[in-house]
Amino acid sequence: MTSYTAPLKDIQFVLHDLLQLSTQDIEGFDDMEPSFTNAVLEEAGKIASEVLLPLNAAGDTQGCHLENGVVRTPDGFKEALTQMKEGGWPGIDMPEAYGGQNMPHVIGSAVGEMFSAANMAFMMYQGLTHGAASAILAHGSEQQKDTYLPKMVSCDWTGTMNLTEPHCGTDLGLMRTKAEPQGDGSFKITGQKIFISAGEHDMAENIVHLVLAKIPGGPEGIKGVSLFIVPKFMVNEDQSLGARNALSCGKIEEKMGIHGNATCVMNYDGATGYLLGEEHKGMRAMFTMMNEARLAVGMQGLAQAEIAFQNARDYAKDRLQGRDVTGPQNPDGPADPLIVHPDIRRNLMEQKSFTEGARALMLWGANLIDRSHRNGDAQAEGLISLLTPVIKGFVTDKGYDMTVQAQQVLGGHGYIEEWGMSQFTRDARIAMIYEGANGVQALDLVGRKLAQDGGKHIMGFFDLVKAEIKDDDSDDMIKADFLDPLKQASKDLQTAAMYFMAEAMKNPNNALAGSYDFMHLFGHVCLGLLWTKMAKAAQRGLAAGASDTAFLDSKLATGRFYMQRQLPMTATHLARIQSGADPVMSLDAANF
Amino acid sequence: MTSYTAPLKDIQFVLHDLLQLSTQDIEGFDDMEPSFTNAVLEEAGKIASEVLLPLNAAGDTQGCHLENGVVRTPDGFKEALTQMKEGGWPGIDMPEAYGGQNMPHVIGSAVGEMFSAANMAFMMYQGLTHGAASAILAHGSEQQKDTYLPKMVSCDWTGTMNLTEPHCGTDLGLMRTKAEPQGDGSFKITGQKIFISAGEHDMAENIVHLVLAKIPGGPEGIKGVSLFIVPKFMVNEDQSLGARNALSCGKIEEKMGIHGNATCVMNYDGATGYLLGEEHKGMRAMFTMMNEARLAVGMQGLAQAEIAFQNARDYAKDRLQGRDVTGPQNPDGPADPLIVHPDIRRNLMEQKSFTEGARALMLWGANLIDRSHRNGDAQAEGLISLLTPVIKGFVTDKGYDMTVQAQQVLGGHGYIEEWGMSQFTRDARIAMIYEGANGVQALDLVGRKLAQDGGKHIMGFFDLVKAEIKDDDSDDMIKADFLDPLKQASKDLQTAAMYFMAEAMKNPNNALAGSYDFMHLFGHVCLGLLWTKMAKAAQRGLAAGASDTAFLDSKLATGRFYMQRQLPMTATHLARIQSGADPVMSLDAANF
Repeated sequence: MTSYTAPLKDIQFVLHDLLQLSTQDIEGFDDMEPSFTNAVLEEAGKIASEVLLPLNAAGDTQGCHLENGVVRTPDGFKEALTQMKEGGWPGIDMPEAYGGQNMPHVIGSAVGEMFSAANMAFMMYQGLTHGAASAILAHGSEQQKDTYLPKMVSCDWTGTMNLTEPHCGTDLGLMRTKAEPQGDGSFKITGQKIFISAGEHDMAENIVHLVLAKIPGGPEGIKGVSLFIVPKFMVNEDQSLGARNALSCGKIEEKMGIHGNATCVMNYDGATGYLLGEEHKGMRAMFTMMNEARLAVGMQGLAQAEIAFQNARDYAKDRLQGRDVTGPQNPDGPADPLIVHPDIRRNLMEQKSFTEGARALMLWGANLIDRSHRNGDAQAEGLISLLTPVIKGFVTDKGYDMTVQAQQVLGGHGYIEEWGMSQFTRDARIAMIYEGANGVQALDLVGRKLAQDGGKHIMGFFDLVKAEIKDDDSDDMIKADFLDPLKQASKDLQTAAMYFMAEAMKNPNNALAGSYDFMHLFGHVCLGLLWTKMAKAAQRGLAAGASDTAFLDSKLATGRFYMQRQLPMTATHLARIQSGADPVMSLDAANF
Repeated sequence: MTSYTAPLKDIQFVLHDLLQLSTQDIEGFDDMEPSFTNAVLEEAGKIASEVLLPLNAAGDTQGCHLENGVVRTPDGFKEALTQMKEGGWPGIDMPEAYGGQNMPHVIGSAVGEMFSAANMAFMMYQGLTHGAASAILAHGSEQQKDTYLPKMVSCDWTGTMNLTEPHCGTDLGLMRTKAEPQGDGSFKITGQKIFISAGEHDMAENIVHLVLAKIPGGPEGIKGVSLFIVPKFMVNEDQSLGARNALSCGKIEEKMGIHGNATCVMNYDGATGYLLGEEHKGMRAMFTMMNEARLAVGMQGLAQAEIAFQNARDYAKDRLQGRDVTGPQNPDGPADPLIVHPDIRRNLMEQKSFTEGARALMLWGANLIDRSHRNGDAQAEGLISLLTPVIKGFVTDKGYDMTVQAQQVLGGHGYIEEWGMSQFTRDARIAMIYEGANGVQALDLVGRKLAQDGGKHIMGFFDLVKAEIKDDDSDDMIKADFLDPLKQASKDLQTAAMYFMAEAMKNPNNALAGSYDFMHLFGHVCLGLLWTKMAKAAQRGLAAGASDTAFLDSKLATGRFYMQRQLPMTATHLARIQSGADPVMSLDAANF
């Protein structure tokens, strides 16, 4: 019932008009001409619409089923993965040495948005594999890389990450899973992990679990946690598969959404594992995966918002209901289309201005990763480290809200499953929770990232905004519609950061009580910054006589909406932050 | 897995400390002493926790099933209804003449909150019956009242409302269902209605459908719509049941939530119906039901927020994770409870300050209905007419948001169905849609209610707020913490209303584009007003030496949170409103 059209023009606009990809001085970027990227994106868009989308609703209805230790995924998933593998999509931005295509991460991200929009549950199998492979790439020995990466880059073997246990999620220092050294370099892993996405399924020859566990006798708490590679089937030297390892899926969870992905309870019963990275430095290794995963989860928030928006917009153009109060727009029909009504438009413009702004933020972030990884750009690395919790928290919160708003456009039809809008909402909901619940992102941002390296990265961000505002080439329209609101919003962000600096010394809760509002305030400023950049790019295009004036004019109109209707939210976030810890903390826990 | 404890103290505080029920000069209110209302509420709370809650999750999982034209409701629903009937709960605020208990509507509402919190899907059968009975009470002939009301007040027969058709929901003027006069005073009803809650089920002897339809030859559009009583089984003069009427349930919908309630496609194939009220005045009669239903739906929003809050709060007190950054609170345990963390508290305080504020608003609204119905108080009638869209729209939007926030407290456990938090969210979602989607509420508010009777009612509301602010008895704390923020927020509301007045003349879209923000702005001012009243009541209680100081201090602390952390939102709503129609309307529909 739902449809999806890959937003190729919007993505191309970000890649080329905004980021000017092919002119960037980064290895592998020179080939990124618009015609080339368009061919890649167009092909990915086709797969999204023709292969993945048709399996989305059916996967939601059918779900995954555990029978005799085997998880059956929905019909068609395995065949779709075969098609993905044949196209080389899983390794699109992985090194050629292991069979990847070596394209920039920003291209992988753009492609990932489309796949994830069309079928989020399906894409998780592949996304987790990508994350696990990245961790092995960054922390594995040469032998580990050679053993696991070729099969993981091709997605013949999939990957997982195992952190949560029944009694601990965020607080991993409480972990009980243990890893006992066997004297031969291997370990016996024993314990139970829960909420393991893609933990067991029937789509791959092998599953490579990355498992956090404690080596007995190590330091207490989080400092005693190490990371292990624990394959479902043991791997021989020639990469053929050996005996089944001592691990199993004990249960799959019934969930609100992402039914097509198996969320497993994993039992490790003395399973053989191999240390990945250094002993007791498991969190560091896991964070390679986590940081990548957090950005990918942000992308899921955007992706669900995008497909929900497309379907809401199409319905609003099609469904006839009521009359334009300023005069009939469809006088020969029984009523006007929904889209004539100001509140329907208000709703749709909120969605549209969010998705286009968030896409620019996501791809800018991916570009920062490329600059950091391929050029060793420390400034880019610092900036994306700062922005990661903002992207994860803000984009998934707002992305979810947008799926709810999209659902609302359809009225009762948005609530029944037949129209597919409910699934977008139910699937998007998890993105606010996993890879660190959004409250934890806010804590990471305010408690750690803000002050990191002496506050250098937040200062760098403010410098970027300042440079954008001080651009003397801008005309009056850009100044009034974009630079002025951006200036006000970034001033609110600076005031909030200063408030934290001054008040957190007296009581750290003065900062922590405002952390969530700060994350959202920051997110709005980011989108304000990127809309300003996009407006300038659109204006440049119009001045240069670009043929698609309707597209560029729409960018300006959509950006204006964001600046005028969404950015004022920063004032409220600031007011909340400045009320400090007292309103939040004064009630005794017993009186809640 | 979920629990529910009726918030008796909070309800009693609103009824007696805030509304001072027993001293009001309304028929039937003198008996409403705290001891009496407490006995009623306590009994209702017991039924909610012990009878309805245990069926809630099971009803969600099992759902309703249509087999050979018969809808089977979840196990236990029928028996639970029997218990409700035995206690006389369905007719609690209905006239004694028809077997009701004749209690004020405000008591019926307080009881309704508890029942709806414990099992929203179940309560809809009863709630729709109440609405249909109210419409018959207000518009039926004496014979119709005698025929239908005794059985409906007892809930032996249930009721429905039939408005929506496949091609029209909000725009009922497009309706196709027709009612042909048979010359004997009856009509033959033919057409299809969709989204009919409780349209068919196995819990009652008969179902009394109220159906909107057009009598051929009548006026075009909405002015040609009439309302009909269409019973499932024909009713003989002695109220015994006769032949089956020509109507049937064609399908039940798969939905995001409220699975325990059957949402039916109803086919009327020349079914016998009887005019309720006047010909072509069907919307007027239906609005008796709709207005009641809109307030009841607002209550569903509050109810789901309340039960979600209770479960999130309990989890936050129980789950050990991380340490209080200012020092361990549970030094002998492996970690501190979640509730020590500022962002968890921020989340919980948002929920708590909303539910307690919204409860005061809901019960104040119910009290206005009592004043209007029982005393013919025109001012109360005007005020509740103005507030109805605000209550429906704001309380269901925020109520839903709060269920999402509650879910977030549990992290991954909030996403899996086992813990029950997902159901609260999925059930609460419908309240934003049915009985007029919230965008339609905003349109009703700004397009109709604001200017009604020359703007008398909004002026009356501002007078109430002014009187509250100008209260010279208040001390400095009340002034600074409550009156000042209320003053600022109500100034924002007035500025917005003036903006509409000035700008809507130039272009009505200048008002309509801001209607949704206005509804929320208004909602915040309402909660600010009621928190101010509650703060004063708490202070009075403390001054009078009330024994439960912890409870009253908590009211003050919770109210302060709302005033400082939530009320600043009014500034953002105002800024959005003041940007007018341009940002919303400037993009051509083709370019969306």
